Amino acid sequence: MQIISLITDFGLKDNFVGVMKAVILKINPKAQIVDICHEIKPQDILGAAFLLKSAFKYFPKNTVHLVVVDPGVGSQRKKIIVRTKNYYFVGPDNGVLSLSLKDEPPVEIMEISNQKYFLKPISDTFHGRDIFAPISAYILKGKDIRKFGKRIKSIQRLNLSRVKMTSKSLSGEIIYIDRFGNLVTNIDKDIFSRVTKNKKFKISIKDKVIYRLSQSYTEGGPLKPLALIDSFNYLEIALNGGSASDYLKAEPGTPVTVTTSQI
Amino acid sequence: MQIISLITDFGLKDNFVGVMKAVILKINPKAQIVDICHEIKPQDILGAAFLLKSAFKYFPKNTVHLVVVDPGVGSQRKKIIVRTKNYYFVGPDNGVLSLSLKDEPPVEIMEISNQKYFLKPISDTFHGRDIFAPISAYILKGKDIRKFGKRIKSIQRLNLSRVKMTSKSLSGEIIYIDRFGNLVTNIDKDIFSRVTKNKKFKISIKDKVIYRLSQSYTEGGPLKPLALIDSFNYLEIALNGGSASDYLKAEPGTPVTVTTSQI
Amino acid sequence: MQIISLITDFGLKDNFVGVMKAVILKINPKAQIVDICHEIKPQDILGAAFLLKSAFKYFPKNTVHLVVVDPGVGSQRKKIIVRTKNYYFVGPDNGVLSLSLKDEPPVEIMEISNQKYFLKPISDTFHGRDIFAPISAYILKGKDIRKFGKRIKSIQRLNLSRVKMTSKSLSGEIIYIDRFGNLVTNIDKDIFSRVTKNKKFKISIKDKVIYRLSQSYTEGGPLKPLALIDSFNYLEIALNGGSASDYLKAEPGTPVTVTTSQI
Repeated sequence: MQIISLITDFGLKDNFVGVMKAVILKINPKAQIVDICHEIKPQDILGAAFLLKSAFKYFPKNTVHLVVVDPGVGSQRKKIIVRTKNYYFVGPDNGVLSLSLKDEPPVEIMEISNQKYFLKPISDTFHGRDIFAPISAYILKGKDIRKFGKRIKSIQRLNLSRVKMTSKSLSGEIIYIDRFGNLVTNIDKDIFSRVTKNKKFKISIKDKVIYRLSQSYTEGGPLKPLALIDSFNYLEIALNGGSASDYLKAEPGTPVTVTTSQI
Repeated sequence: MQIISLITDFGLKDNFVGVMKAVILKINPKAQIVDICHEIKPQDILGAAFLLKSAFKYFPKNTVHLVVVDPGVGSQRKKIIVRTKNYYFVGPDNGVLSLSLKDEPPVEIMEISNQKYFLKPISDTFHGRDIFAPISAYILKGKDIRKFGKRIKSIQRLNLSRVKMTSKSLSGEIIYIDRFGNLVTNIDKDIFSRVTKNKKFKISIKDKVIYRLSQSYTEGGPLKPLALIDSFNYLEIALNGGSASDYLKAEPGTPVTVTTSQI
Repeated sequence: MQIISLITDFGLKDNFVGVMKAVILKINPKAQIVDICHEIKPQDILGAAFLLKSAFKYFPKNTVHLVVVDPGVGSQRKKIIVRTKNYYFVGPDNGVLSLSLKDEPPVEIMEISNQKYFLKPISDTFHGRDIFAPISAYILKGKDIRKFGKRIKSIQRLNLSRVKMTSKSLSGEIIYIDRFGNLVTNIDKDIFSRVTKNKKFKISIKDKVIYRLSQSYTEGGPLKPLALIDSFNYLEIALNGGSASDYLKAEPGTPVTVTTSQI
């Protein structure tokens, strides 16, 4: 099986995504292309990095994960291939791959430079079509990634605001809002469990306080936000039958705190 | 050929749909996944039921129709597989499959419970990924559906407002509005023909009256709504070159009546 | 490899696109369907024609390009198949294929009429499903296109506003705005180079003047629009990190002029 997963900020009103697929299939007719998301906000590197991180590990071994959110296209930013134990990651070296590579460390990193594998003429504005799509198609065909450029040692990382932790509390923030208005925080299950273990706790966001974790979205009422560990293992604030985002007027960056007390 | 059709309310701004496809392909690399719709309004069971009903029969025999519009995820609602003469239907037991099953009666209904076939760890908030996707992939692979749980007798039905019919008239309503603003009613071709046969008729919606059926959207003018039997065999109100929904300010629930008189 | 590319104005909120794919796969299980775009503005023939023209040549030889933007569905407009050296084009004869056929001239044109290959019963409102999808699936299977109807000589052309050229200047206009707010003009690379060769030039749009071509979107500042030859070889006006369309309040039809002077 030969799968390329695709994340871009190209949207669906133009033909950019379709053209990239055409280029891939022309080189590698066996490629199976799976869209993860194309509605990334234009140039939102963090949003794309988060969606990749929470999706990549569900794919079969050897999937090529291609991400084209590339505000620096045509400038001096590098174009990279990262080989890990299970996958290949391809994209611009702007941090968009870095959150995933914390979970799945790089085995080999190549800077793409060998024009032999590019689509000609190469534009300066659409490397998704001219460079990333053909390179991904060739990787999937089994071409040795050392053919595509030279080995490098490190990649750009994203500067994420980290969760502040004391023995009694956690201070984090909203990092993603999904279609349903659920508010995903940067507080993951492990850190949450460690701090709240055997203690009473309260979760505060805006002027609301939540005293327990729910199991599902069906708990709580229309005016009563709930908290749960979501399906990607992050603490999430939600509203039964409604949008927590609308109700709380929360957005990425809104603080969320967890404070504990002895039982 | 192995096809899974997909209807969800997950939208396309997150990675939920891509992750479900990854799970399916990891289990069954030969699966061909066809998106019917992911832009169902969040938790709009009736909308999803309608789109499934008007689409399913165009698919090849043995297609697995998977629907994940599931406001009750994680609660006590059942998860079901319905085998019919030609297809498999998979989804939550909340009525979303029921309109289709009026046309294609169940041969066997299974309640899904065998955790052996689930993705672990099972979340309480994303059964699309953890339960419905893997089960659908295994069905497509030919796994006997009796392995997945226990047989049950009946499923939840939707409470639809029915068309009221007398010998001289029909009272129905708008049940769906498509992208073009065409207004689909719950009055189907058969019932319409039965009541209007050999009679003059008028169709009333809001303050407008339409005296005939058109053949295509190109009849009528920009301020003159037309009525036709649409491609899914429902009476539909449309506007040549415009949106009947905008023009008439009609929405789901807006009444539509047909009254007849002798010629 | 057997590819059908798909452009429609059906959007993604209904099931029209999924149903067309079902019909194609029922006839031809080997078809690989690549979406170019479904978010064409309803009935925007020119927009669809432009997206097809800039996408079709990236596809493998023998791809069937199917376009269903068809405001005249059910009326007397023809339904056509155009065979060219490398591709097949299928759609309504309303000009939507014509821009592409300037670059890739027709070898044979068939008017579709043989009902044997249609889906029954044929609706008057959804020829995408009942006529164009099955015909495309049969073409891809290798069926001789002369079976589908009778040969005709010519097709409808679009009336495009042409670029006005003197030895010193070019007058064109915006013809397309992409997701990022980039403004695509109808001035292509060849004509631009011919007029500006060895001369100083200025590009004017609204009250702004641009004196040079940039290489990439990363040049220029947030209040300083830039001009470049885009990845499809048209002169394009853009804004680094922003939307030129929003900033300049430009839209399709907005004039763009290039004037030159000796160095």
